[in-house]
Amino acid sequence: MEIIHDKLKNIKAFVFDVDGVMTEGSVFATEDGQFLRTFNIKDGYAIQHANKLNYPIAIISGGNSQGIIKRFQALGLSDIHVGQQHKKAAFESFLSKYNLSPSEILYMGDDMPDYELLKLVGLATCPQDAAKDIKSICHYISPLNGGKGCVRDVLEMTLKIQDKWWNNHTHVW
Amino acid sequence: MEIIHDKLKNIKAFVFDVDGVMTEGSVFATEDGQFLRTFNIKDGYAIQHANKLNYPIAIISGGNSQGIIKRFQALGLSDIHVGQQHKKAAFESFLSKYNLSPSEILYMGDDMPDYELLKLVGLATCPQDAAKDIKSICHYISPLNGGKGCVRDVLEMTLKIQDKWWNNHTHVW
Amino acid sequence: MEIIHDKLKNIKAFVFDVDGVMTEGSVFATEDGQFLRTFNIKDGYAIQHANKLNYPIAIISGGNSQGIIKRFQALGLSDIHVGQQHKKAAFESFLSKYNLSPSEILYMGDDMPDYELLKLVGLATCPQDAAKDIKSICHYISPLNGGKGCVRDVLEMTLKIQDKWWNNHTHVW
Amino acid sequence: MEIIHDKLKNIKAFVFDVDGVMTEGSVFATEDGQFLRTFNIKDGYAIQHANKLNYPIAIISGGNSQGIIKRFQALGLSDIHVGQQHKKAAFESFLSKYNLSPSEILYMGDDMPDYELLKLVGLATCPQDAAKDIKSICHYISPLNGGKGCVRDVLEMTLKIQDKWWNNHTHVW
Repeated sequence: MEIIHDKLKNIKAFVFDVDGVMTEGSVFATEDGQFLRTFNIKDGYAIQHANKLNYPIAIISGGNSQGIIKRFQALGLSDIHVGQQHKKAAFESFLSKYNLSPSEILYMGDDMPDYELLKLVGLATCPQDAAKDIKSICHYISPLNGGKGCVRDVLEMTLKIQDKWWNNHTHVW
Repeated sequence: MEIIHDKLKNIKAFVFDVDGVMTEGSVFATEDGQFLRTFNIKDGYAIQHANKLNYPIAIISGGNSQGIIKRFQALGLSDIHVGQQHKKAAFESFLSKYNLSPSEILYMGDDMPDYELLKLVGLATCPQDAAKDIKSICHYISPLNGGKGCVRDVLEMTLKIQDKWWNNHTHVW
Repeated sequence: MEIIHDKLKNIKAFVFDVDGVMTEGSVFATEDGQFLRTFNIKDGYAIQHANKLNYPIAIISGGNSQGIIKRFQALGLSDIHVGQQHKKAAFESFLSKYNLSPSEILYMGDDMPDYELLKLVGLATCPQDAAKDIKSICHYISPLNGGKGCVRDVLEMTLKIQDKWWNNHTHVW
Repeated sequence: MEIIHDKLKNIKAFVFDVDGVMTEGSVFATEDGQFLRTFNIKDGYAIQHANKLNYPIAIISGGNSQGIIKRFQALGLSDIHVGQQHKKAAFESFLSKYNLSPSEILYMGDDMPDYELLKLVGLATCPQDAAKDIKSICHYISPLNGGKGCVRDVLEMTLKIQDKWWNNHTHVW
């Protein structure tokens, strides 16, 4: 926990997978072939709060849906990468856009397509119900499952350690 | 519990947050950018029952959706305030409409935008899975999670202590 | 359990509430004011199986939705009563249609609008997560929650005790 | 577990039920009579991964919905049999198409319509929340529930024992 604490102090930006991290890891299939998702509101509060504080936040998902894009646009984000079969290209363009190094990134992912990026970043995190191979390489495993507040957990932890959680906007969405 | 009991006797009206209180704290995102919610039926029974007994009941939500409005209209409510980024204005207009003081209000909320109102009211309550900073300031933490009957819990508890739960309408929706 | 066993042997028909019994007790609210429900497939298997064996099965719900009607029609039922604010009238018409007495009925309900009928029937049952006032008057409380197989539980138990569970149709939906 | 290990080594193809295996065993009923389902993403990852490795994978469901077909087509499958009231015919046509014997099949099902096929195959598996009569005849009961990763569990276990889990495609969806 000592080591996590030091790493959290150095985090400058966040990158999140969607399915199984922002969601419970399920998609709702409609008859016309859409796959729809359910998002967590406490995660949402922390995302818009961190975004107002100007932390760069990227979403990188293999999934491809207007629902994903519209959810994160509604929270104020602009770095929303969907349909990424291989996530590394989007990750690198995000780093170069904000002049960040991998060591300054907190990444949260839950399955094999996140493996490579989790090995690269300064703070590799995952939900409690991540795949076994993913849990074995993460620095921090949230006590919360995907879609159940694991994103809120790491954002709140980081912002509190960096003394950014409480401000004039804390009680305003 | 002694203290809660006395406070419950003095409650004249109820104010509820929506996301994470009336719901499990998740929104379902459609492809055209709607965010839809799932509501609890046992909560619904208690809301319509208390409403028939003429308890003022307000809904104050940061979220903005016809689904919220239509759900609570169907239960008979008229004080439904959505899209409230800062909740205090709606709260004060509700108090003045019914000539109530904050000490006569039971409020239930689960996250930072509810913090200020929870500090003001006579009986501050939250679901079991509320944010930590919220749980630390509430008088009563329901054993039930958001969307899982926490609203029913506080309404049933209040109406029973005030001898209003059982009447000719109890077995009719 | 001895007493339940004898009662199960005498059951000739089933009456089920919908919300909180056939469902987890939640409704999904659309933007145009529909309230939609999620049903359990293992319950569904047992309902169509008992229906093929010619047990009369009634659905009596305060809710009113085409989704309820279409779900139970798809399982082969014809006694589907929705929008029943007071459930007793539908119950009595079901009894007289099939020439049944209340003592021959297994009823499952979970909340106050089910109270009167639960007091009348031969075998009063409820899901594990029924309202406290309901649990206190039931002969049998299923170990399973609403929407999680509580209906399957009582149907399978009854049909097995009456030696009707296994037949040529058991492996066919 | 020794016995399971040997059986897993001999598995050449997979057959899956849908409701209660690929899903939590619930269907969402729309007002116009559709029944929609929610699928697990970690299951999805393993299905497309095994499919790229050319394992034959069949879906056999009593349910009938474009949502089922489109979900598994999106994962690359072509042997998708819906609306199968009696599952044996689809099973036999799958075996003969790929020249497989029942002993080479891992089957996962959760309820009575799966009983006959589970008795036939080399490795009979089910989710943790399968019907009791089904659990009693399976060689392996996943620790995970339907829709919560039980399909991923058996696919990952098989591919790891057969040294096929890790390859150049493991980190790509």
